[in-house]
Amino acid sequence: MAGKPQGRTGRRPGPNQTRAAILDAARAAFAERGYDAVSVRSVARDAGVDAALVHRFHGTKEELFVAAMALPVSPSRIVEAVLAEGVDRVGERLVRTVLGLFDAPDRFAPVLALIRAAVSNERAATLLREFVAREVLGRLAAAASPDRPELRASLAGSQVIGLAMARAVVGVPPLATTDPETVVACVGPAIQRYLTGPLQTA
Amino acid sequence: MAGKPQGRTGRRPGPNQTRAAILDAARAAFAERGYDAVSVRSVARDAGVDAALVHRFHGTKEELFVAAMALPVSPSRIVEAVLAEGVDRVGERLVRTVLGLFDAPDRFAPVLALIRAAVSNERAATLLREFVAREVLGRLAAAASPDRPELRASLAGSQVIGLAMARAVVGVPPLATTDPETVVACVGPAIQRYLTGPLQTA
Repeated sequence: MAGKPQGRTGRRPGPNQTRAAILDAARAAFAERGYDAVSVRSVARDAGVDAALVHRFHGTKEELFVAAMALPVSPSRIVEAVLAEGVDRVGERLVRTVLGLFDAPDRFAPVLALIRAAVSNERAATLLREFVAREVLGRLAAAASPDRPELRASLAGSQVIGLAMARAVVGVPPLATTDPETVVACVGPAIQRYLTGPLQTA
Repeated sequence: MAGKPQGRTGRRPGPNQTRAAILDAARAAFAERGYDAVSVRSVARDAGVDAALVHRFHGTKEELFVAAMALPVSPSRIVEAVLAEGVDRVGERLVRTVLGLFDAPDRFAPVLALIRAAVSNERAATLLREFVAREVLGRLAAAASPDRPELRASLAGSQVIGLAMARAVVGVPPLATTDPETVVACVGPAIQRYLTGPLQTA
């Protein structure tokens, strides 16, 4: 989509221009085709550069996505960081980490842009769904209890999305302004149960 | 905003035209001023009719809002219905009822329109926030345990919003396609704990 990057003066494009051209191509490709169907190789082709260069500049496909969408942090790194200490109290650590993101408007703005797009059009919903399933839920499921781990991960995801909506998008009182550690103590155990507790207690 | 309803031929407007004029005025007023600042009386004034007529046609302010937004059901009635049997297992009954709404695209469409508007602009977010706080959370809080009932209600609300997003908006797998009674058994106890359980177990 972006074509070969070309300096204004006709000179060979510098690394910053190439980087920007790759990110433009990545944004266009993700918006058009979702997450799963896009590869580092296809973005390189769209940008008219070598795939090795894309890898060198932007790392993995997820890192390319994170850079293209200007996300403040890689979601898979959040999950890996909270899982690094094991599954014990992982619910609380996850809530503490995402609250740090929801409560910082500047950092949350690009996440909000993704949510806005997903809520308003089906293609962007597919992109967000595929990205979350591939890069976030799979890692959570790997740490969840063996009884329906994928369902557990998606249940935890639903509570995290709901917390984002209530805290940072719609602003539901009093949850929107409750001190973070109280929210951690309230929501952490719910997510912990989804991931490792007895699931169907009814 | 809508001015006095007037028949095309200059005749006195019929009840259907008056009804429509009231709903137009209500939509404009809610969009402009949020939920709390609008009254049945102010909508009547905007529509150029008597407040008693608005009450007769559309009932309470909430019923007027529900009609203006074409919502399939009054949210406060959902809450009242699930609370009619007491607080025991209210979490499961609430999840079962909202799933019936999320899983019916025709009925969910007007709810999705409200969510879309709230996610994309601050004024619509205020409207949704004030409506939910006034008509839904207050009723839930009244049934919640006395330790922080408003926080409990908003926590339950966050999980319901997250379920709507995961199930009907973004479509997070496998939760989006899990059979409803399994979802009830998984999410019901989380909402039950928010409303009536030990809240801060950390």
